[in-house]
Amino acid sequence: MKIGYSPYEQALTGWAAIVGEENVVTEAPLLCAAQTGTFASSHRIPAIVRPCDRQEVQECLRIANRFDTPVYPISSGRNWGYGSRMPPADGCVLLDLGRMNRIVDFSESLAYVTVEPGVTQAQLFAFLDERGSKLWMDATGASPQCSLIGNTMERGFGHTPYGDHFAHVCGLEVVLPTGETVETGFGRFPSAKAAPVYNWGVGPALDGLFSQSNYGVVTRMTVWLMPRPEYFQAYYFRCEEAHGLQGTIDALRPLRLDGTIRSASHIANDYKVVSALRQYPWLETGGRTPLHGAVMAQLRNELKIGAWNGSGALYGTKRQVAEARRLLRKALHGKAQRLQFLDDRKLRLASLFATPYRWISGWDLQRTLAVLKPVYGLMKGIPTGHPLASTYWRKTAAPPASMDPDRDGCGLLWCSPIAPNDGAAAEQLTELVCARVLAHGFEPAISLTMISGRALACIISLTYDRDIAGEDERAMACYRQLVRVLADHGYHSYRLAVGMMSAMGEPGPYMDLLDGIKNAIDPRGILAPGRYVADTRETRASAAAASGR
Amino acid sequence: MKIGYSPYEQALTGWAAIVGEENVVTEAPLLCAAQTGTFASSHRIPAIVRPCDRQEVQECLRIANRFDTPVYPISSGRNWGYGSRMPPADGCVLLDLGRMNRIVDFSESLAYVTVEPGVTQAQLFAFLDERGSKLWMDATGASPQCSLIGNTMERGFGHTPYGDHFAHVCGLEVVLPTGETVETGFGRFPSAKAAPVYNWGVGPALDGLFSQSNYGVVTRMTVWLMPRPEYFQAYYFRCEEAHGLQGTIDALRPLRLDGTIRSASHIANDYKVVSALRQYPWLETGGRTPLHGAVMAQLRNELKIGAWNGSGALYGTKRQVAEARRLLRKALHGKAQRLQFLDDRKLRLASLFATPYRWISGWDLQRTLAVLKPVYGLMKGIPTGHPLASTYWRKTAAPPASMDPDRDGCGLLWCSPIAPNDGAAAEQLTELVCARVLAHGFEPAISLTMISGRALACIISLTYDRDIAGEDERAMACYRQLVRVLADHGYHSYRLAVGMMSAMGEPGPYMDLLDGIKNAIDPRGILAPGRYVADTRETRASAAAASGR
Repeated sequence: MKIGYSPYEQALTGWAAIVGEENVVTEAPLLCAAQTGTFASSHRIPAIVRPCDRQEVQECLRIANRFDTPVYPISSGRNWGYGSRMPPADGCVLLDLGRMNRIVDFSESLAYVTVEPGVTQAQLFAFLDERGSKLWMDATGASPQCSLIGNTMERGFGHTPYGDHFAHVCGLEVVLPTGETVETGFGRFPSAKAAPVYNWGVGPALDGLFSQSNYGVVTRMTVWLMPRPEYFQAYYFRCEEAHGLQGTIDALRPLRLDGTIRSASHIANDYKVVSALRQYPWLETGGRTPLHGAVMAQLRNELKIGAWNGSGALYGTKRQVAEARRLLRKALHGKAQRLQFLDDRKLRLASLFATPYRWISGWDLQRTLAVLKPVYGLMKGIPTGHPLASTYWRKTAAPPASMDPDRDGCGLLWCSPIAPNDGAAAEQLTELVCARVLAHGFEPAISLTMISGRALACIISLTYDRDIAGEDERAMACYRQLVRVLADHGYHSYRLAVGMMSAMGEPGPYMDLLDGIKNAIDPRGILAPGRYVADTRETRASAAAASGR
Repeated sequence: MKIGYSPYEQALTGWAAIVGEENVVTEAPLLCAAQTGTFASSHRIPAIVRPCDRQEVQECLRIANRFDTPVYPISSGRNWGYGSRMPPADGCVLLDLGRMNRIVDFSESLAYVTVEPGVTQAQLFAFLDERGSKLWMDATGASPQCSLIGNTMERGFGHTPYGDHFAHVCGLEVVLPTGETVETGFGRFPSAKAAPVYNWGVGPALDGLFSQSNYGVVTRMTVWLMPRPEYFQAYYFRCEEAHGLQGTIDALRPLRLDGTIRSASHIANDYKVVSALRQYPWLETGGRTPLHGAVMAQLRNELKIGAWNGSGALYGTKRQVAEARRLLRKALHGKAQRLQFLDDRKLRLASLFATPYRWISGWDLQRTLAVLKPVYGLMKGIPTGHPLASTYWRKTAAPPASMDPDRDGCGLLWCSPIAPNDGAAAEQLTELVCARVLAHGFEPAISLTMISGRALACIISLTYDRDIAGEDERAMACYRQLVRVLADHGYHSYRLAVGMMSAMGEPGPYMDLLDGIKNAIDPRGILAPGRYVADTRETRASAAAASGR
C-alpha cells in the first residue's frame, strides 16, 4: 500500500492505522472480484477496508468524512441477483463487515439472539444446534453464507412464520455516517430490560429508516426466533394448468389471513422448478433459447410438475396441524391438484424405500424428493445452498462443487414486484411477466410468495450466461423493461438491484424528504451514495459512467 | 374574530380564509375546555382551527410557517391519561382534525379500510356493522369516540390478534410541516396496487417516523382488519395471591410465543378491577385513602376477584379453539385458579338466567357478568365506554350519564412501562409500583398486557380527584417518581404524557439524530413543539412556564 498525498490516499493511510494494513485490501484481483456480480456494472472499487468491531467502523466513517471518500458497507456481500458486493456508485471503498461475526446475546426463554453483520445463516444455525436450542431461525434460500443483517436490511424474506425478516428484529445498533452510534428502540437507555423484546421503543420509531437506505451502518441487531413446534408438516400441491393460479390464490388467502396458515405459501411456475432441478435442456432444444412450447411440456411431464407448484408448511401441535390440514384440504379441493403432506417420518421412510418403491410402482420417488426436499428444510429454517445451483441454469458446464455465481459468470437479475394477495392480480402480473421475458429470449422463472394474508411477493429470476457476448446487455434491457412495465401496471418492486435505483421514483416531495433526511444525517454524502436514492448527483454521474456516456 | 397585525393575528386571518371563520375557534370557554385534561397543565391554547380536508391542512401549515405560529394537531383529542387535547408546549394553536372523518376505501376480501383522522372507533364499528362485513376491527378500551389514527400514532393497543395497532396499518398520507404531502409505502406511486396491503414499500421505511413524533400530520391511514373467526371464546382466570403472577406469566409465555394464543392476555390486579366496577369505598374506609389492607381484602372477597385477574380470548374454528383451550388448561394448571371459558351462547344463557341462578346457587352471576362482559366485547373489537367510568373512582358523586373526565375534574395519569414477558420481571415491576404509589397516597391500579410473546405492557393508572386542592401536584409528584424509579430499574414507558417528555432521554447522539431530522423536516419548528422531544428550547421554556418558575 502506497502512502501518498491525495485525500483518497490519506484516507487509506488513516484506515490502515485503524484496522491494520492487512485489513486494507488494494490488490487488483481481489478488487476485481468484488466488482463482479451476476450482472454488469462499471463501478470501480478502489479498496476494501475490513474493520473488526463497532469502534473501528466509527473511526472508518470519521476518516471517510475527513477525506471525502465514499464507502459502501457490505455484510457478507451475497446480495445475489440485486448486485452482490457491487456498490450503486462508482469509486466507493468497500467497508466489509464480515469480520464482525459475533453472536453477542441469546435468550432461549424469550427467544431472541443478538448478532453482528458478519453472522451468517449457517453460523446461527450451528449456534442453535450446538446448544440443543428448541428455537428455529428463519432462513432465506439465498445461501448459508448469507448475512442475517444484510438480508434483513434489504427486507428479504424466508419461509417460516418468521419469514418477514424486518418484522422480526429490533434493537439496531447503528453507526451514523458521521461516526456517532445510536441504538434504536429502548436500547438507547442503559440496561433497558425490554430492549431486545420490544421494537417500537418510545418516540419516533427509527428502525425502518435504516433498511434499504444509506443512512447508517447497522452493526448489531436482535433477531427474534421461533419456538420449535411440537409438529411440523409440509404441504405441496400443483396447478396442472396456468389458469389454475387464480383460484388457488383466492382459496389460500382466507387461511393465510385468519392465521390457519402461519407462514408464507410459495408458488413457483414450471420454469422456476425446472431451473431448480436441472440445467437448460440444450440437447432437447437443439441449443435454441428461450425454452417453451413442446419441450417445456415434455419437461413438465418428465419431472412431474405442474404449471404452478405450491409448497408451504403447517406448524403447531399435532392437533393444530391436523385441523389446519383439514382446512387446507377443503380450501384447495377442486382448485389445486395433488395436495400432498410430508413430515419427518414420511420423509425418512421415503428416502429409505425410494428405490424399492420405484420397482413396485414405477413412480420415481427419488425424483419427487429431489423437488420437495430442499424446500422442506427451508420451511424449518434450515439454510441451504441448493437454490444457488439454479444460477447455473443457462451454463453449458455443470455447476462446480463450490458454487460462486459472481466468479463463474452466472447471470442473474431478480425483479421483485409486490401484488395484492388476489388471484386476478397474480394472473395479470404473471402474464405480463411471461410475455415480456420470453419476448426478450429468456425464461420467465417466477415464484409467488404469500408473505402475508394481504400481499404476494413475486420474484422473477432472469438467469443467463454472462460469458455469452451481448447477454449482459440483453438481460439488462429485458430487466429494465420488465420493471417499467410492471410499475406502469401498478406492481412495484419491494427491492431494487444496483443499477435500477431509478425505480425509487420521480422527483417530488417524497424524494425531497428522503434527501432532507440524508443531508441531515450524512452532510458530506460519504455513506453508500446512490443506494435506494434515485436522483442524487452521484447516481446520475455514476449512471453516466456506467452507460459509457 | 379581530383582524390585527401581529404575526399571530395574521395567521388567524389566514386560517379563517381557508377553513372559514366558523372553523376558527377563539371563544374563551371552548379554549379553556381544550386546555383542560385529566391532570394539570398551564399550556395555553390561543385558538382552535378545524380544517375539513387534506388540502386545508396543507394550507394551514403553510400559514403556520409564514407567521411562525406553532400548531398542535389532534384527531379526537381523547388522549386520556396522557394529556387529552393539551399540547406539550405553551401557545400552540390546536389543529383539530375531527371534521376529516371520511372512510375513503374499504376491501372486504383483502380486509382493510382507509380512514381519515376524525374516524372514530364507533364510526368504523358502525360502518362494518351496516355492511354486514365479516371483518372485525380492534378497539382500545379508551372510548368509542377515540380516533383510530390518533391512537395508532401514539402506538396504542387493543385486545384482539390485531392489538398492536401500529403493526397493523400502512399507507400513511402525511402532511409535512412545510405543507407538502407524502404517502408512505407504495402509496407514493400512482395507482400502486399493493399500497394498502404492504407496509414497507421500497427504500427507507418511513411509517415509524410519524408515530410518537412531531414530524408530520397524518391525514390518512390504512387499517388492516381481522376476519371474523368461526368461533370465539373468552377465557378468564385468577391468581388468588399476588405472588401467583410470576408462575402465570411464565406459563402463558410459551402459548403466546408459539401462536396458540393469538391475542394479548390481559392481567389486572385487584385495584384495577375494583376501580372498573365501583367507586372508591368511602364508607368502608371512613374516608381514608389510600385503599389497602383489610378493606381491600373484603372488597376482593365481595367482588369475587383475585389479587390478579386474567382475561384473554381464543379465535379460530371450533377445533382450533378446542385445542387452544386444552393447551391453556394444561399450562395454567396449578398456576392460576378458576379458569373459565365464556362464549356467546353461554353469555346469553347466563344473562337470561342470572336471577334464578342466584336464587338456586347463591352465587351472584350478575356481578360476575358485570366484571366479565365489558372486556368480553373488547376482545371482539367492540368499542366500549365502560372503562371510562373508572376515571371517576375517587369522585364522591356517581359518574354522569355522559362521562367526560376532562370536564368533570377526574384526575388520571397513565404510566406505561414495558417489561420482558417474564414472570420475575413482572413481579419486580409490580412490586416497585405498588410500594411507590401507596406511599404517595394513591391506589396502584395495574394491568399487564402480553402484547407479544416477548413483551408485557404494564399500564399503571393513577386516578384521583382534581377537585381536591393539592391533588394535582401530589399525583404528578408520584407519577414523576414512578417514571424515574421504573426507568432506573430498566422499565421504560412506551408512551409519554404531556409534561413527562423528559423521559425521552438525555442529550446525546440519539437526541441529536431526532433533532437533525426535525430540523430537516420542520425548519421553523411549527409542528407540535415539545412532542416526544426532551430538550428543545420550546419544551424547556414551556416547562419553566408550567412550573411557574
